[in-house]
Amino acid sequence: MTDLQFASLGGPDAADVIRTAYARDAPHVWTHRRPLDDVLRDLESAPNGPLYGIPFSVKDNIDVAGLPTTAACPDFAYVPAVSAPVVDRLLAAGAILVGKNNLDQFATGLTGTRSPYGACATPFDARYISGGSSSGSAVAVAAGLVGFSIGTDTAGSGRVPAALCNVVGLKPSRGLVSTRGIVPACPSLDCPSVFALNVGDAAAVLAVIEGQDPGDPWSVARPPSTVEDVSLSNVRLGVPREREFGGDREHAAAYAGALARLSGLGATLVPIDLEPFLAAGRLLYGPWVAERWTGLGDFVTAHPGSVHPVTRQVLSAARNYSAAEAFGAMHRLRELRARTEPVWADIDALALPTVPTTYTIAEVHANPVRSNAFLGYYTHFANLLDLAALAVPAAFTPNGLPVGLSFLAPAGRDGFLAGIGAVFHAATGLTTGATGHALAPAAPPAAGNDGAVLAVVGAHRRGQPLHHQLLARGAVLIGIDRTAPCYRMFQMGDRPGLVRVSDGGAGVEVELYRVAAADLGELLVRIPAPLGLGSVTLADGRTVVGFLAESYAVAGRPDITGYGSWPAYLSAAVP
Amino acid sequence: MTDLQFASLGGPDAADVIRTAYARDAPHVWTHRRPLDDVLRDLESAPNGPLYGIPFSVKDNIDVAGLPTTAACPDFAYVPAVSAPVVDRLLAAGAILVGKNNLDQFATGLTGTRSPYGACATPFDARYISGGSSSGSAVAVAAGLVGFSIGTDTAGSGRVPAALCNVVGLKPSRGLVSTRGIVPACPSLDCPSVFALNVGDAAAVLAVIEGQDPGDPWSVARPPSTVEDVSLSNVRLGVPREREFGGDREHAAAYAGALARLSGLGATLVPIDLEPFLAAGRLLYGPWVAERWTGLGDFVTAHPGSVHPVTRQVLSAARNYSAAEAFGAMHRLRELRARTEPVWADIDALALPTVPTTYTIAEVHANPVRSNAFLGYYTHFANLLDLAALAVPAAFTPNGLPVGLSFLAPAGRDGFLAGIGAVFHAATGLTTGATGHALAPAAPPAAGNDGAVLAVVGAHRRGQPLHHQLLARGAVLIGIDRTAPCYRMFQMGDRPGLVRVSDGGAGVEVELYRVAAADLGELLVRIPAPLGLGSVTLADGRTVVGFLAESYAVAGRPDITGYGSWPAYLSAAVP
Repeated sequence: MTDLQFASLGGPDAADVIRTAYARDAPHVWTHRRPLDDVLRDLESAPNGPLYGIPFSVKDNIDVAGLPTTAACPDFAYVPAVSAPVVDRLLAAGAILVGKNNLDQFATGLTGTRSPYGACATPFDARYISGGSSSGSAVAVAAGLVGFSIGTDTAGSGRVPAALCNVVGLKPSRGLVSTRGIVPACPSLDCPSVFALNVGDAAAVLAVIEGQDPGDPWSVARPPSTVEDVSLSNVRLGVPREREFGGDREHAAAYAGALARLSGLGATLVPIDLEPFLAAGRLLYGPWVAERWTGLGDFVTAHPGSVHPVTRQVLSAARNYSAAEAFGAMHRLRELRARTEPVWADIDALALPTVPTTYTIAEVHANPVRSNAFLGYYTHFANLLDLAALAVPAAFTPNGLPVGLSFLAPAGRDGFLAGIGAVFHAATGLTTGATGHALAPAAPPAAGNDGAVLAVVGAHRRGQPLHHQLLARGAVLIGIDRTAPCYRMFQMGDRPGLVRVSDGGAGVEVELYRVAAADLGELLVRIPAPLGLGSVTLADGRTVVGFLAESYAVAGRPDITGYGSWPAYLSAAVP
Repeated sequence: MTDLQFASLGGPDAADVIRTAYARDAPHVWTHRRPLDDVLRDLESAPNGPLYGIPFSVKDNIDVAGLPTTAACPDFAYVPAVSAPVVDRLLAAGAILVGKNNLDQFATGLTGTRSPYGACATPFDARYISGGSSSGSAVAVAAGLVGFSIGTDTAGSGRVPAALCNVVGLKPSRGLVSTRGIVPACPSLDCPSVFALNVGDAAAVLAVIEGQDPGDPWSVARPPSTVEDVSLSNVRLGVPREREFGGDREHAAAYAGALARLSGLGATLVPIDLEPFLAAGRLLYGPWVAERWTGLGDFVTAHPGSVHPVTRQVLSAARNYSAAEAFGAMHRLRELRARTEPVWADIDALALPTVPTTYTIAEVHANPVRSNAFLGYYTHFANLLDLAALAVPAAFTPNGLPVGLSFLAPAGRDGFLAGIGAVFHAATGLTTGATGHALAPAAPPAAGNDGAVLAVVGAHRRGQPLHHQLLARGAVLIGIDRTAPCYRMFQMGDRPGLVRVSDGGAGVEVELYRVAAADLGELLVRIPAPLGLGSVTLADGRTVVGFLAESYAVAGRPDITGYGSWPAYLSAAVP
């Protein structure tokens, strides 16, 4: 990854890259930029890790030891003694911290205008907003001030500014990246996010910062998000039947163009009803605002004059809601989530506009609350519904403003989204950020190494009851694949039984894990008859180790091959 | 399952069983008992399912089409047109609905005294409470009025009365059983529960009622909860370092006795810090009460005189809490859950007292709120922390009152809990409920050992070309044996292929080796298709790991079963 971005930032030498980045600037991007000499000194002792020498910045609601955390509210500022784990992981990977970025105060907003440090503009037109709340982080990447940056995303703050600055905004699954050391907005929804010039870079950064943090109660044990090698001709993408652009024909046309491009790449577009998703998003504007008040209410109450007037107005609405209304909103969310879930049997991901339109800074100042809410029309619901999301550049409007496209899928599908996002982005032919540089070709997928590859059909899959047996042995998910079309799957109580047949078989979905050979034995002794481990042939002809059933035991069992996968069968097996 | 309980209820004839049950009664158990003639008519057309002919009852917060749902509040009552799915599933399995049971009003309470239909007593002493809120459901089972019953459990309502009535109370994982058609208490926590005389019965009922319900937003896709065959010598049980019985020495002694019994059965007892669990449970007495208000607040406000005064007092506290406090409680729960999670790496389940003490009905009336809260000391947290739980009878106090023990484990472990609960319950030697009948013996547990036994048919035997692979891994020959007479052996080039068949098989000679589990994996990755490792049944019925061939690959291969062993075939086949 890193060589390509080094080239686009400066030259082959890491110090030259940093000096070149320092020779550039953009208005209102920084709340704190470290002196060049300090940064070059850091470079001398930087670990030779996967991000060695790459300058980066973090949104100023993320703790860096010794630097003030302002959250764009100077009177709120404190100087943390320790850095957020996300920062520590990047430094340990060799990345070089340049500074901290401006944001919508308390990460409350999607415009980039609600800050005493100034309103950020997109690098493409100084009259237009950068988007927010991670405004400075997105502009810093687009303008070539850093190789990547870390933002946060509760309601779209990691995607809206990516769209408006022609960069990639990766919003990981909730809990995949630690939120410790980050000023909370809505703790149940907050996600650190990544801005980068291309999907490969963003995924490489995610690979460094992801992983369970026992010190963060919102952290979730998830397999690493390996980028999947995806052909769009196998992908079904949900697109809304009813589309909303607030009358912005340029954004509407750009979205139509993006869908045409996806079709051209082989993707199947599936019209869906977006209303339950949108309804979930609207909950943020009801009692849910009280979740922000849990962390910030005491400060706002004690220091009303220190808070941006729009932010104060938005947050103070929390006081109008009762505990019963908060629980009612949670119940409503649960109902809406249940209404959205069947769609995932039909599609692999949603492909939506990232924003329906954009605004000038003056327009936002004139109408700060409504413009802000409309910007999040397609982003608000992602964290409420526990979706992973990836915003990628899609096009430019005729008057030169960037337009983005977002892919969304259920939590845990980060690597899949990166796979499809990289293919789409490469096909746009766009230059990256505001650098004028061409997008590098997609990197080849990671090659295999030692250890065995295990194909898992049923109870050991993610979310299934025996998955912990894999996790306990350090198994690493490396992809989802299908068997060769010569297998049949049977329902054997609470497990599937996979049997290879001489004819009449089909492909069955499997999860592929890299497992140390020694650990396979530990697994094997826990497998009850009539199941065992043998060789499974995949659709591409590779042979891997896999779970198989003995044929005598499947006689008379329901043949569920037609469901295509065990999870699909379980979902469908409701009376 | 069912035969045993039929016997304890009456006789071999289903109609006799029902008539016998109808000849019994217990005070305040019913809000509605259907006429015997109607029930006998149902029996005539009952499906011949797994619960055929077994009389059951449901707590009167569960809808039965055509019968009023009172939730123990007559002014709240309505007559539903459709039954809850849990009822429909039981009827479809052949079970016979006898009626609806008394409860603490709105399932709010753990004593069984908060009902206009009277306070239920334990069948063992009319002065003492039955426990609640599923009071009538537990007593109905204990007193032999039904074969099993369905209750609900939000904070312990499916476990506390089980303990106080000497029956099994199975509280499934959240979302495993549909809550549709049940009057909500706390929708995010509510679980239907099962009362039965023994664990096997409860598990058999669960197997009928479990399964995802797309109409219930709280339903969760989970695999079926097959009862696991567990040896307690492989089980680590968490027990609290600090124990609380409110000065009740009899309950303390009974718990100590139960732990001694578990030790005697081979379980390892692991002292743990219960405080984060207890702290989670205490959240129910803060803003969380507002979750009950979301469903009931409008009724209580409109009909204050219709509500039990204690219930009204408890529910009305909801009005004191703000939305921010509700979100704060959720954040606190998340922190506490994170604090509890490491313990599950050390233990397989918690083994706790179900209740710390019990009370007379008069004591509860004198001190209704505090006594109620203390009863839930060990139960409150289960649903908040997403645990499955199983309450089983453990002992009787010297003055003849039952004492229970509860096993708890993370959601999805219902089948495991049933496995250990059945072993423990059987070891108590108690009679069931108040029936005086002995508990049926449990199935013998599978013998556990370390390392694996590997059955070798062909190329890995002594003198054969791959034997060195075994030697390299320290495998030790422990004998020569034969498979059960249900295998066939085929000649597959330079190796035999062993396949289990449904009929026409024979015994085949194998060498048995003891191999470390880890080394099995190293062997496995060296085995080419179509061979693998699975379970092989020996002539004496033991199951060991062994080499097997996939059946598709033996088609057309010479059947050499008749030689009896691979070496015999090789000797004979020499030209």
